[in-house]
Amino acid sequence: MAKLIRKRRHRPGAAPGSLHVVGNGRDAPVQITVIDYDKESLDERTVETIEDLARFRDADTVTWANIVGIHDLAVVERVGEIFDIHALTLEDIVHTTQRSKFEEFENYLYAVIRMITFDTEETSIRTEQLSLLLGSNWVLSFQEDPRDVFEPVRDRIRNSIGRIRTSGADYLAYALIDIIVDEYFITLEQIGEEMENLEEEVLGEPDPGTLERISTLNRELVLLRRSIWPARELIGSMARSESPLIKKKTTVFLRDAYDHAIQIMEIVESFRDVMASLRESYKTSVSNRMNDIMKVLTIIATIFIPLTFIAGIYGMNFEYMPELSWHHGYFGVLGVMLAVGLAMVMYFRRKGWF
Amino acid sequence: MAKLIRKRRHRPGAAPGSLHVVGNGRDAPVQITVIDYDKESLDERTVETIEDLARFRDADTVTWANIVGIHDLAVVERVGEIFDIHALTLEDIVHTTQRSKFEEFENYLYAVIRMITFDTEETSIRTEQLSLLLGSNWVLSFQEDPRDVFEPVRDRIRNSIGRIRTSGADYLAYALIDIIVDEYFITLEQIGEEMENLEEEVLGEPDPGTLERISTLNRELVLLRRSIWPARELIGSMARSESPLIKKKTTVFLRDAYDHAIQIMEIVESFRDVMASLRESYKTSVSNRMNDIMKVLTIIATIFIPLTFIAGIYGMNFEYMPELSWHHGYFGVLGVMLAVGLAMVMYFRRKGWF
Amino acid sequence: MAKLIRKRRHRPGAAPGSLHVVGNGRDAPVQITVIDYDKESLDERTVETIEDLARFRDADTVTWANIVGIHDLAVVERVGEIFDIHALTLEDIVHTTQRSKFEEFENYLYAVIRMITFDTEETSIRTEQLSLLLGSNWVLSFQEDPRDVFEPVRDRIRNSIGRIRTSGADYLAYALIDIIVDEYFITLEQIGEEMENLEEEVLGEPDPGTLERISTLNRELVLLRRSIWPARELIGSMARSESPLIKKKTTVFLRDAYDHAIQIMEIVESFRDVMASLRESYKTSVSNRMNDIMKVLTIIATIFIPLTFIAGIYGMNFEYMPELSWHHGYFGVLGVMLAVGLAMVMYFRRKGWF
Amino acid sequence: MAKLIRKRRHRPGAAPGSLHVVGNGRDAPVQITVIDYDKESLDERTVETIEDLARFRDADTVTWANIVGIHDLAVVERVGEIFDIHALTLEDIVHTTQRSKFEEFENYLYAVIRMITFDTEETSIRTEQLSLLLGSNWVLSFQEDPRDVFEPVRDRIRNSIGRIRTSGADYLAYALIDIIVDEYFITLEQIGEEMENLEEEVLGEPDPGTLERISTLNRELVLLRRSIWPARELIGSMARSESPLIKKKTTVFLRDAYDHAIQIMEIVESFRDVMASLRESYKTSVSNRMNDIMKVLTIIATIFIPLTFIAGIYGMNFEYMPELSWHHGYFGVLGVMLAVGLAMVMYFRRKGWF
Amino acid sequence: MAKLIRKRRHRPGAAPGSLHVVGNGRDAPVQITVIDYDKESLDERTVETIEDLARFRDADTVTWANIVGIHDLAVVERVGEIFDIHALTLEDIVHTTQRSKFEEFENYLYAVIRMITFDTEETSIRTEQLSLLLGSNWVLSFQEDPRDVFEPVRDRIRNSIGRIRTSGADYLAYALIDIIVDEYFITLEQIGEEMENLEEEVLGEPDPGTLERISTLNRELVLLRRSIWPARELIGSMARSESPLIKKKTTVFLRDAYDHAIQIMEIVESFRDVMASLRESYKTSVSNRMNDIMKVLTIIATIFIPLTFIAGIYGMNFEYMPELSWHHGYFGVLGVMLAVGLAMVMYFRRKGWF
Repeated sequence: MAKLIRKRRHRPGAAPGSLHVVGNGRDAPVQITVIDYDKESLDERTVETIEDLARFRDADTVTWANIVGIHDLAVVERVGEIFDIHALTLEDIVHTTQRSKFEEFENYLYAVIRMITFDTEETSIRTEQLSLLLGSNWVLSFQEDPRDVFEPVRDRIRNSIGRIRTSGADYLAYALIDIIVDEYFITLEQIGEEMENLEEEVLGEPDPGTLERISTLNRELVLLRRSIWPARELIGSMARSESPLIKKKTTVFLRDAYDHAIQIMEIVESFRDVMASLRESYKTSVSNRMNDIMKVLTIIATIFIPLTFIAGIYGMNFEYMPELSWHHGYFGVLGVMLAVGLAMVMYFRRKGWF
Repeated sequence: MAKLIRKRRHRPGAAPGSLHVVGNGRDAPVQITVIDYDKESLDERTVETIEDLARFRDADTVTWANIVGIHDLAVVERVGEIFDIHALTLEDIVHTTQRSKFEEFENYLYAVIRMITFDTEETSIRTEQLSLLLGSNWVLSFQEDPRDVFEPVRDRIRNSIGRIRTSGADYLAYALIDIIVDEYFITLEQIGEEMENLEEEVLGEPDPGTLERISTLNRELVLLRRSIWPARELIGSMARSESPLIKKKTTVFLRDAYDHAIQIMEIVESFRDVMASLRESYKTSVSNRMNDIMKVLTIIATIFIPLTFIAGIYGMNFEYMPELSWHHGYFGVLGVMLAVGLAMVMYFRRKGWF
Repeated sequence: MAKLIRKRRHRPGAAPGSLHVVGNGRDAPVQITVIDYDKESLDERTVETIEDLARFRDADTVTWANIVGIHDLAVVERVGEIFDIHALTLEDIVHTTQRSKFEEFENYLYAVIRMITFDTEETSIRTEQLSLLLGSNWVLSFQEDPRDVFEPVRDRIRNSIGRIRTSGADYLAYALIDIIVDEYFITLEQIGEEMENLEEEVLGEPDPGTLERISTLNRELVLLRRSIWPARELIGSMARSESPLIKKKTTVFLRDAYDHAIQIMEIVESFRDVMASLRESYKTSVSNRMNDIMKVLTIIATIFIPLTFIAGIYGMNFEYMPELSWHHGYFGVLGVMLAVGLAMVMYFRRKGWF
Repeated sequence: MAKLIRKRRHRPGAAPGSLHVVGNGRDAPVQITVIDYDKESLDERTVETIEDLARFRDADTVTWANIVGIHDLAVVERVGEIFDIHALTLEDIVHTTQRSKFEEFENYLYAVIRMITFDTEETSIRTEQLSLLLGSNWVLSFQEDPRDVFEPVRDRIRNSIGRIRTSGADYLAYALIDIIVDEYFITLEQIGEEMENLEEEVLGEPDPGTLERISTLNRELVLLRRSIWPARELIGSMARSESPLIKKKTTVFLRDAYDHAIQIMEIVESFRDVMASLRESYKTSVSNRMNDIMKVLTIIATIFIPLTFIAGIYGMNFEYMPELSWHHGYFGVLGVMLAVGLAMVMYFRRKGWF
Repeated sequence: MAKLIRKRRHRPGAAPGSLHVVGNGRDAPVQITVIDYDKESLDERTVETIEDLARFRDADTVTWANIVGIHDLAVVERVGEIFDIHALTLEDIVHTTQRSKFEEFENYLYAVIRMITFDTEETSIRTEQLSLLLGSNWVLSFQEDPRDVFEPVRDRIRNSIGRIRTSGADYLAYALIDIIVDEYFITLEQIGEEMENLEEEVLGEPDPGTLERISTLNRELVLLRRSIWPARELIGSMARSESPLIKKKTTVFLRDAYDHAIQIMEIVESFRDVMASLRESYKTSVSNRMNDIMKVLTIIATIFIPLTFIAGIYGMNFEYMPELSWHHGYFGVLGVMLAVGLAMVMYFRRKGWF
């Protein structure tokens, strides 16, 4: 299960704009890869020293620098200096418990969004913070972990598929956000499958483990919703932004991504409805089983308790009990018992108990 | 049951505007039928090659081209070229998991809406995506499946019923959307009947199958709501649109369709309320039955357990038990048992248990 | 119980503005009564032929024509011609499943609102559609059924009570709507009483019939809400309308009616809350009764089962059982049984079970 | 318990603006007290005839006329004539089932607000309608009942405490509304205490009476919310009003009262949440007790039923039962029984049942 | 547990703007500490007499006066005079049951916000009111209790960390609010941990104490939400404020704090969802345990009741019972009993009961 709340590791009251490490991946070295391209040329490389980034800043080509690992504050600070980033943005980049948001600064736009993956094994969502900075002709992306979902975008750049090589940095930023939103669909599909399995289980053979699976999935859905909800807002703000850094023709694409974000929220909401219904069904199913158990007990007890009573009567040791000496007394009593038993059975059958 | 989420079949991160097949009906050939009409003339035909569509584009008459089957990407792309359709629109047409929406482009309006049918047998809603493009004097409709609900509109064109032959392409687009919304009412009526059957069942003779039927219907209602909700928005945007492609006198009709869409949403919401209440009633009904079972058990056990105890006492083998040798001991004990039994029965009757 | 959804009887896809009968009362002939009045004169009559209506259209006096029965399409169409009514309005008049709404046309205003009565016998709300058209100095009202709630308004016109004779057609339209809203209060009062009865029943002596009554009332409340909710909107639009057909001093009265409509919605919402609470109480009450039943069973069984066991021991037929031959064995055992029984009773009393 | 809906006593369809008695207190005579003051002078008296009010109307001093008892329509009508009050306002004054609201007229402002008291004995809220009219330098207050909460305001006027003697009629109107809102806090405190008592009861020793107390309190909370909610709106409208009758410096105070009204609504909402949680806890507590009862029954029954069976075996009368003649047969069987009993006890202990 | 509502200690209807003690800490003397600083100089001291504050009012340096203890009305009033504070503000400062809010006055801005700490021992939140007044170059903070969370801010001032020494009074006010919001995160983390413990408990070994812990935590969450919700609004108003007292570059920081406040609300909402789910799980878990108990009872009773009946039959004392004299009668009956018992066991196993 994912944590209900991710610990912020810095002391409250630290000076805003001061950098403290919060995220994971503390041991690995920071990796910076750069893809620099325009319509004709393409240059993909791993940057050795941060200073190498400086020359991309004012180049005419579109530059995408992907910084993996944000625990090395010196690196983040130096990148901030090179690209003239506000102290608060740098703070947001390294504090990886941010809410998805979009902020406009004079020389760049800042978007922070959560990448989400679903671990089917552990029924647990995992989120990672992605910070995206869009300048005039550069995009910086900061991520905690080297694993990412951007490979298809890299392929499109490498192979010049679609309009990505002929469009600007804003289209690249859109492409990165779009693929993250697409990943949300994958997560929802996985959760949807999990829910359909649970549905079958609940209506078929629920066991106590089912309750735990429902609880866990429900909880992850709550956390998922908390992660995804602000993303909708962020993309909406971005699509409505009037910053010159986002060209009008890219806005059409952002509106499309926004529609996807809304669709995702609607799916999440309907999942919540289905989960609530699932839980109710489980509860009623448990009640139904209790009913079945009670029925068995009641049928057995109600048939045999009176019979045992009859047997008890003729087990009494009174000296004068006329029936005991009757020749057919025994079989007569057996007959009476049979009649009583059958009457009970018929009564239950008429009540529809079995 | 319908799937909770329909799988998108394309890879995440595919270039936006690139076409990948997502919908059903992959094997059937694409069928294009054209109805071209004005006040006097009417021309209905099946188009052999796509190129035949080109001459309708700038004709004075109103043209409705209905393209069935969207899996042949070449066809969709070629139609897109002829009518000058934006790449993103084409992508939306072939990805049949769209949320209903309305988009304005310079030379056309694009509406995507879900057609819904309810399969009473399987208690399952089926949805199909309809893409509608409205140009100056043409309407393109893309659907996955040859079955459609448009026959009454075709009849009205053929037989010149109402104002359809004297109105423009915008009225035709309205007529198509209106009939889809009318179908929503049919679906709701079917679900309403299903719910009334369930209501009777719950208050009459609920069985475990009832729980499953409630769960299933509830779930389909959740999915239905997700499908219908955005339609309201789409028709609203269309009615408020200031595009010259929609004439003012058509707006009155769109507002009427919008009212219907709101009415549908209100019905869906009230259905959800009734479903929730139904589920509660089912649960309480199950509890009531458990109560009945417990009552029977308790009455029988409580009457006979003390009696059996009395019989047990006189079944003991003590040498000195004075009652055993009394002449009326046996009948005296029988009398005591009867008295105890009757007292119990009266106690239960006073408690109102039977 | 009212139907969850009222069937629309026309085929989907019929040409908008074409007339098809949907409402009830098909057999009765259409009745048209006219009240024509100004400050001094009053003329109340039943109209023989529709054409008689024409001369009221442009008269200086205020004319209220009440058309009962809307199944005779020819009548509705002819009235439409005389008063120059839009085809869509005529369609709305005859399709009696409309959502309450308010629409402005150039020469008239159109309001459709549901009249509601509550059948206490069957715990069922009944709704009837009222169409109201307000022209410069005429009001047309279309209703399905001859029974109506307008008699007090007629009396006020006849006896010149209040400002109705000195005000225009807009005030008349307000008066008709106001009386319908007043009837909503009556319905709510009846439902409120029903709920208070149910409250007493639930906290007193609930039986399975209680569940059914709760379910039915809840369901009617859902339907009532669906009928009333849009009325609020309609009156609000009317009060905010800037049409010259509604004079400023009538607006004050409409705002008053709007306040009533809001008050009604708030009462409905609070009724829903109380219903939900009622249902919960019923459920808990059922659980409490189950508890009581279980307690009786447990007390009886727990006291007598051990005693029966003791009796069973001394009913065994072993040859060597020393206690059997003790002189006070029998009474000793009876004493032990009494002690065990009393200990149990004291244990239950300490647990507070009785 | 308070009624779910207060009966309106006038016939539906009565002419708006016509006066019909609705409120309580029909028998007592109408009492009119006047406090007339400015910075220096103070005149407090009971008015004999209504006509005495006329001279206060245009006086320079601030006049507060408090009319207790609104059943004497002649009085209300005459006051209306003197102060030039709209017919609809007079109707609202005498119909004491109004929703709280604020209305601006040319020469006065009209506020109707509900005074609320909580009867701890009967766990029932009582509401009374207060109508407040604010003119240029007069305030009229109409109330049903002589008991009121205004004494502290009268004291402040009499003893010239705070700014009340140096401020205008608008400040007086604010002071009256403010004290009513302050009373809401008292009511909430009383309900809060009641809830805390219930909380303890539920987690301690709930009995069936607890359910009734929860239901009643919940219901009163629903009614309280319905009464208070519109008050927030009324004070908000008043604070935002641009009428010259409310001076700018009074607006600051009204905004403060508005903040209090919002705080009250938030408390009511949180109370509802706590009530819902309380009800849930009660239900679970009932289930837990049922569990305890079942455990006792199960432990006793499960231990003794097998033992009784063993005793039953050796109570059989077969001629050839070798164990019966064994010398240690009896004690052997007792030993077996003890072993079985202890095994059961250990099994339950391991299951954690006691 | 925290109180559901904090008692206001003043009489309703007291003159607004008049001061009455409401808060805690009545016995301790009022403490006033001043930190006066600019870029170069720093002066931290405890003020002896209030009059000493006067000279800081118009100084060029930034002054932060922290007044601990608000029960000494003379002190608050005198401070009000020195800094020219509105009477209503002074009233709000001493009435410590305020809702968080932000108000603009001509010469200062007033923010009241609740500081929250969570007492893990008692599972109880504690709130304390902080009043913050921001003037041109001074900040006044009023708190009830000497304990506070501002030490890190003081350290930043003392050690000149970050921009605090070079920024104005508005930045100081932001820093104080920011640290309070940061403390909210701490509280949420503690509650989150508590919830995760409860989750484990519920799915593992719930006991009646679990219910109490869930109830208490839920209730504290309701109160927490009520305290935090208005803070979001307050910071939002402050960030949107156009007062010249807040410089534009500080607004960026306030927007950041606002984002945090929204994030906090989203976490609280998701916690509520998780709590609701937790409670449901607990209820179902209780039902599951009841099921287990019932199963044990049913299995034991259902196996042994028929067997005891058989034993009872052969314990009857009829003279003519042929089986009794059969040589293998006894062992035959034992065999039959074994067969019946095994059949029962197999039946339960097939039903999956153990």
